[in-house]
Amino acid sequence: MAGNQTQKKAIVFIAEGSEEMEVVITVDVLRRAGVRVVLLAVGVTSGPVVCSRGVGMVPDAYLGDDTVKIGTFDAVVVPGGMGGAEAISQNAQVRSILAEFHAQHKIVAAICAGSLAIKTAGIQAKAPQPLRLTSHPSVRAQLELDFVYKDDRVVVDNNLVTSRGPGTAFEFALALVSLLAGDAKAREVAAPMVLNFSV
Amino acid sequence: MAGNQTQKKAIVFIAEGSEEMEVVITVDVLRRAGVRVVLLAVGVTSGPVVCSRGVGMVPDAYLGDDTVKIGTFDAVVVPGGMGGAEAISQNAQVRSILAEFHAQHKIVAAICAGSLAIKTAGIQAKAPQPLRLTSHPSVRAQLELDFVYKDDRVVVDNNLVTSRGPGTAFEFALALVSLLAGDAKAREVAAPMVLNFSV
Repeated sequence: MAGNQTQKKAIVFIAEGSEEMEVVITVDVLRRAGVRVVLLAVGVTSGPVVCSRGVGMVPDAYLGDDTVKIGTFDAVVVPGGMGGAEAISQNAQVRSILAEFHAQHKIVAAICAGSLAIKTAGIQAKAPQPLRLTSHPSVRAQLELDFVYKDDRVVVDNNLVTSRGPGTAFEFALALVSLLAGDAKAREVAAPMVLNFSV
Repeated sequence: MAGNQTQKKAIVFIAEGSEEMEVVITVDVLRRAGVRVVLLAVGVTSGPVVCSRGVGMVPDAYLGDDTVKIGTFDAVVVPGGMGGAEAISQNAQVRSILAEFHAQHKIVAAICAGSLAIKTAGIQAKAPQPLRLTSHPSVRAQLELDFVYKDDRVVVDNNLVTSRGPGTAFEFALALVSLLAGDAKAREVAAPMVLNFSV
């Protein structure tokens, strides 16, 4: 698939304290679907990133690396894990990337505490109507005044895709596959993973 | 919890080609339950391990490292991913560790193609009755003659715990938590992950 001009491309952010299950499930499922994924480190400039439960993960690139042409990507994803979500959502460059992707009708996705980045990016201020989203229940109070807060496991509001926690990460990743590569691809990818739900 | 003499300890093996979701879900969920986990590399002696979908993960130690006192652990876990499962199941030291743990009634666990290691370790030859297990459906044919093959998402046969794929990894990890730390701990760990099933 490499070099295929129709291949979709996604950035998955990672920072110290990111929830490793949410990171890995998203990256892995998207790659199973043929999406080119760049795991992009925020707030770390070399070496592996230590996630929320101590797993060290090697990013593909570091934010600020000129070789990553962010404007050419189709989707950006913010994982949870409180420490990671705070580092990512407070980063000025990330905030402008999220706002720009949303303005261009590209996919902006977040899971768990990662949904905080939707708020800090100021996306809702420019939206024509209130945006619908969800998050980990623990950060609901920080979001429900600014958004139409939903309790669904995955919420798709046009190109804004949000979800709740590690246990919803497969549904979240497959929703992204549906948007980027179609429902048939999502079903094809889901089957060999032996999930307990249908797509 | 570090230094707590009652703290349970588990080894999770990892090799080039291991399924990163199965590795990370197991490590993360066990650590959420207070189990001390060592991510132990097989067939790699330094640096990160590149998993099945290209995610580089940093192991905590490398097989053969004298500082890891394998005999003091309570459980060993073999993840899937065909390349990783083959490297792990063909490793002579791993085979003797699995056989020794099973003989000592410690937990031996495998998921997906990782169940092949149960066969190569020769555990069934010494068992008083046929062992019940499951695996990824794609390696069923390599196992069903030697074992009582089950299609359940998680199979617990005394201290032998097996499961099917990335989509069963949460159930698998929580079954290990139940055995190592009790059902109440499994429920406590499950709640904030927002799973779509009860434990």
